[in-house]
Amino acid sequence: MLKNPEEEHPKKAFGWAARVQSEVLSPFKFFRRATGEKDVALKVLYCGICHSDVHMINNDWGLSYYPLVPGHEIVGEVNEVGSKVEKFRVGDKIGVGFIVGSCRSCENCANNLENYCPNYILTYSSKDYDGTITYGGYSDILVVNEHFVVHIPEKLPLHAAAPLLCAGITVYSPLRYFELDKPGLHLGVVGLGGLGHMAVKFAKVMGAKVTVISTSPHKKKEAMENLGADSFLVSYEQDQLEAARGSMDGIINTISAQHSLLPLIRVLKSHGKLIMFGGTVKPLELPIIPLLAGRKIIGGGVSGGMKETQEMIDFSAKHNVIPEVEVIPMDYANTAMERLVKADVKYKFVINIGNTLKNSCS
Amino acid sequence: MLKNPEEEHPKKAFGWAARVQSEVLSPFKFFRRATGEKDVALKVLYCGICHSDVHMINNDWGLSYYPLVPGHEIVGEVNEVGSKVEKFRVGDKIGVGFIVGSCRSCENCANNLENYCPNYILTYSSKDYDGTITYGGYSDILVVNEHFVVHIPEKLPLHAAAPLLCAGITVYSPLRYFELDKPGLHLGVVGLGGLGHMAVKFAKVMGAKVTVISTSPHKKKEAMENLGADSFLVSYEQDQLEAARGSMDGIINTISAQHSLLPLIRVLKSHGKLIMFGGTVKPLELPIIPLLAGRKIIGGGVSGGMKETQEMIDFSAKHNVIPEVEVIPMDYANTAMERLVKADVKYKFVINIGNTLKNSCS
Repeated sequence: MLKNPEEEHPKKAFGWAARVQSEVLSPFKFFRRATGEKDVALKVLYCGICHSDVHMINNDWGLSYYPLVPGHEIVGEVNEVGSKVEKFRVGDKIGVGFIVGSCRSCENCANNLENYCPNYILTYSSKDYDGTITYGGYSDILVVNEHFVVHIPEKLPLHAAAPLLCAGITVYSPLRYFELDKPGLHLGVVGLGGLGHMAVKFAKVMGAKVTVISTSPHKKKEAMENLGADSFLVSYEQDQLEAARGSMDGIINTISAQHSLLPLIRVLKSHGKLIMFGGTVKPLELPIIPLLAGRKIIGGGVSGGMKETQEMIDFSAKHNVIPEVEVIPMDYANTAMERLVKADVKYKFVINIGNTLKNSCS
Repeated sequence: MLKNPEEEHPKKAFGWAARVQSEVLSPFKFFRRATGEKDVALKVLYCGICHSDVHMINNDWGLSYYPLVPGHEIVGEVNEVGSKVEKFRVGDKIGVGFIVGSCRSCENCANNLENYCPNYILTYSSKDYDGTITYGGYSDILVVNEHFVVHIPEKLPLHAAAPLLCAGITVYSPLRYFELDKPGLHLGVVGLGGLGHMAVKFAKVMGAKVTVISTSPHKKKEAMENLGADSFLVSYEQDQLEAARGSMDGIINTISAQHSLLPLIRVLKSHGKLIMFGGTVKPLELPIIPLLAGRKIIGGGVSGGMKETQEMIDFSAKHNVIPEVEVIPMDYANTAMERLVKADVKYKFVINIGNTLKNSCS
């Protein structure tokens, strides 16, 4: 039985929520817990819109509780710390990603892989330690255990840092884990959206030759001139795919629609790695012999652990890996989501929560 | 245009061949090349029957030339060496596996991965350097470049060593490559045939806890008492699969029939590896979200390179990894193949070529 945060929690909060499945967001008053001894309380400044926010509002994965306050690409400023908080002080700029809790005792947690803890707590629409539902970053304040908070270095512009907390770590972590971070590799990036454009940026900084694979020939100029890709393939042009056969060490595949894996497997060198990111609901067809014949693998992952998230943030600051964002006011979020579904954004929407969220209910 | 070995080659040879697609094997006279300066000529003693021999006879993969002399699990004795042969002497016991040539200059060849050279030459039914078709080990003699020959240590019984050359290396190599060779891991082996029984044996010697996953409950006693498996799961028993959920570090999946991957993905721990061996012709359904949610991978491979094949043979001799075989005479091969298709063998047929191949045509 989920508890009602309004009965349990003393801290007045305000945000935008979907009250029922698939409904537009609207202003929503709620409560957050008091700042516990290991908690950091923050004023939210910016929150990215992740494609999963749309899936969660629509309950596409069967995980959603309503009212649902989305948002897990959160940048804010600490305004209170608990008595035992060690890493943060009032005034620090901080980030919160897709989880705000985990068991802290399983093998994954012990290996800094809280993102694979079977009992992790999602930043929103998830059952919290105390039995209440978590509410996300489309809101004025947040209270989070410091373990699930990262520092945002001064060098990173705060508005552009927000998407690093989900899109950024989601592509960074598999590039490291699957050893696609070595200079000189040839990597393909399929799909040039929020994840894809971050994959191009990280892969370039890591020293890869990057080929964007897209269904949209008009994205070529942008991919090569703005994002720094080295080449561009139109995925339905058989001759282009044939010419690229056996040429790539890895592919970052961000497509979530149904699609054929065979052309991508063929474009890999032997021992190449096809890394999946799209949360495709229906199974895809996997041809076995082409996979075996080159000792290729298909893998994927979900975000990264807290240690690696901080590492990725620091890496981004050091190497100037900055997401391309369109900053919007809170009341544009519903329109932004409509545009996001049509892939009409370069490349991430970020809500300016700090300056545009008006507590019209209070 | 393929050249006719009978016109090109001086060395009389004799074996059993399928004259046309899907036909039974019958006695066949042919010719082999003279022993070149880097060649080893051998008298064949034993040759294992690989399931791929059946596929090749039936041209299931569109690769077959006829007449087709199968056989790529070959053990023999050197009876002649070329002037520049360095590794072998007359009288040595040697083995030949699934390839007898490769380009020797590509990246894979340079990395001792001749088995992934795009221009490798199969031991049978493949175009050789000189344009003739290769003939396999269901024959009295073979002539092979020494690079594609391995030593068989004295400790290995020759008849039982034959299946190591294909079935053995096929499971050994991925266990190493995918790092499933670490003591203490929990590995599943799906299917208890020629490959599966070798996987159990290697995995046990490498220090794994091994669970056999099978559709045949009656194999439990054999798997645990004879092969040394630690536990046994019946794959259609939902409660057994559910109890094993998230318990395995890797799965060696030797099933080549159509089957569902989802139950196997679920049985893996996070970061687990599902390694495929069956040459399933039609694609399988791959559920993406369960793969991503645990950062699991699906991979596979084809045999091993020459250096690793020798390593595997030496490892097998040292650790007493001996295939379970039923030794048969040459004229039983057609019947053996019928039984193999019905999985009626524990676990590999090996033809006693040396003593039972009679050159009735000469």
